[in-house]
Amino acid sequence: MDGRVLGVLGVGLVDPDTPLLRVDDLGVLRGDGCFETLRVRDGVVAGFDLHLARLGHSAARLDLPAPDVAAWQALVGQMVAAWTGPGEASLRLTLTRGVEGTGVPTAFALMTPVSDTVLAQRRDGISVVTLNRGMPADVHEDTPWLLGGVKTISYAVNMAALRHAHQVGADDVIFVSTDGQVTEGPTSTVVWAQADHLCTTPTTLGILDGTTLRTLFERAPAHGFTTEVRRATVADLHAADAVWLLSSVRVVARVNVLDGRERGDAGLTARVRAALGL
Amino acid sequence: MDGRVLGVLGVGLVDPDTPLLRVDDLGVLRGDGCFETLRVRDGVVAGFDLHLARLGHSAARLDLPAPDVAAWQALVGQMVAAWTGPGEASLRLTLTRGVEGTGVPTAFALMTPVSDTVLAQRRDGISVVTLNRGMPADVHEDTPWLLGGVKTISYAVNMAALRHAHQVGADDVIFVSTDGQVTEGPTSTVVWAQADHLCTTPTTLGILDGTTLRTLFERAPAHGFTTEVRRATVADLHAADAVWLLSSVRVVARVNVLDGRERGDAGLTARVRAALGL
Repeated sequence: MDGRVLGVLGVGLVDPDTPLLRVDDLGVLRGDGCFETLRVRDGVVAGFDLHLARLGHSAARLDLPAPDVAAWQALVGQMVAAWTGPGEASLRLTLTRGVEGTGVPTAFALMTPVSDTVLAQRRDGISVVTLNRGMPADVHEDTPWLLGGVKTISYAVNMAALRHAHQVGADDVIFVSTDGQVTEGPTSTVVWAQADHLCTTPTTLGILDGTTLRTLFERAPAHGFTTEVRRATVADLHAADAVWLLSSVRVVARVNVLDGRERGDAGLTARVRAALGL
Repeated sequence: MDGRVLGVLGVGLVDPDTPLLRVDDLGVLRGDGCFETLRVRDGVVAGFDLHLARLGHSAARLDLPAPDVAAWQALVGQMVAAWTGPGEASLRLTLTRGVEGTGVPTAFALMTPVSDTVLAQRRDGISVVTLNRGMPADVHEDTPWLLGGVKTISYAVNMAALRHAHQVGADDVIFVSTDGQVTEGPTSTVVWAQADHLCTTPTTLGILDGTTLRTLFERAPAHGFTTEVRRATVADLHAADAVWLLSSVRVVARVNVLDGRERGDAGLTARVRAALGL
């Protein structure tokens, strides 16, 4: 495929079509590992430090060794320099527990072109369904083994939820707790606005600490927005002036349809896009 | 390692030390796939049909193509014939969604020696802690995207629960729903007995349909046991005459300690072992 670049930590660049992983890598046997996905544009990797900090948080929660940030930075630098594809790229860093019994993690990064679908969703917005995530809002407070807030590669439920959305004609999902609290998307953070007031849901719900969300909230005051972290129900989203899903590569996607109901954005999306540098 | 045998569906036997998987296999990118683990002893694979049926069920729930049972049978036959290790083997069949964008699943099987730890637990029993699985008992009835009852490779939470058990000095875990119902172990089925009456929890709780459990319940009448599928609380387990965890390779492990309380088995384990052919 055009423009794919594969890097292996401690090795360097490798042919992306070459099989690299043994079948007894716990990443594939048990989905036992963590990852980050970053956006690369014009040779610039967005939010490298934030993503590496979150990878370190995930690794610590999984009892994996702390990522070697300098080694990742050097590898990513090599990969970005080798990138020949046009347009934007998605850069996925993966850290697994490695081959069973060795105690040596597997660490690699794959850089691929951003798909036209993702670019279209960023430009035109998306249709979203809410789905029950099967857990009460406050279950993660004293259950660290449930890995709330950890970006593991065990994403089968997230992928099944997205397939379900596609089957019912939607593009994406917002997960809701069993007690009706909005949590996050399978691969995104939920943000909504009432006039100039931007809101998102708290990480105490066991959700990921969104890197794009952090960037937006840091820049929000300079773009005339106030910000708040608070709980919400689906009814609150219907009542909001605008709803978006934020993620690293798609950056921001306006929610045009929520559970079959068309909705507007009160013209706020342009200002959010500007704050995010789009 | 001695006696490891790797087979690739549609290919045949492959050197197990050779990397086989591309890094963009959705099995490792997303934990998107399913698996089965079977016990092999003296050239005999236990419960092949039951395991392939369950692999088919998992594949259907994940929108993966139905497994080619004849091809798997031929591959497993080749692998068992090639096995030179002493003692028992564990045979893990894995089916992933394959390399992103190709729509071609990846299917392989790995045969490894059964560890001394597993054999010791089968013989001597285990210490178990109960852990909150974070979901209400009845949440799986109309939420197919939560993949209840599907044996996916997204096992990060199961592995984290086992690590937590080891940290508190236990060997294994029994998961409990947020509303106090006993469900299953991270890699096992829970069975308990009151005198000659064997009980297990219902699959409507979103748990796996245990193959070893099926075998035990089929043979139970011939060994003087009655059987029942019913719900239970942790208090019910404490009150039972015996508690076991059943799984394919360990077969049965008597629970000697539950949440720090030592417990007996009323001499029933020998009869359960006999029913399971141990």
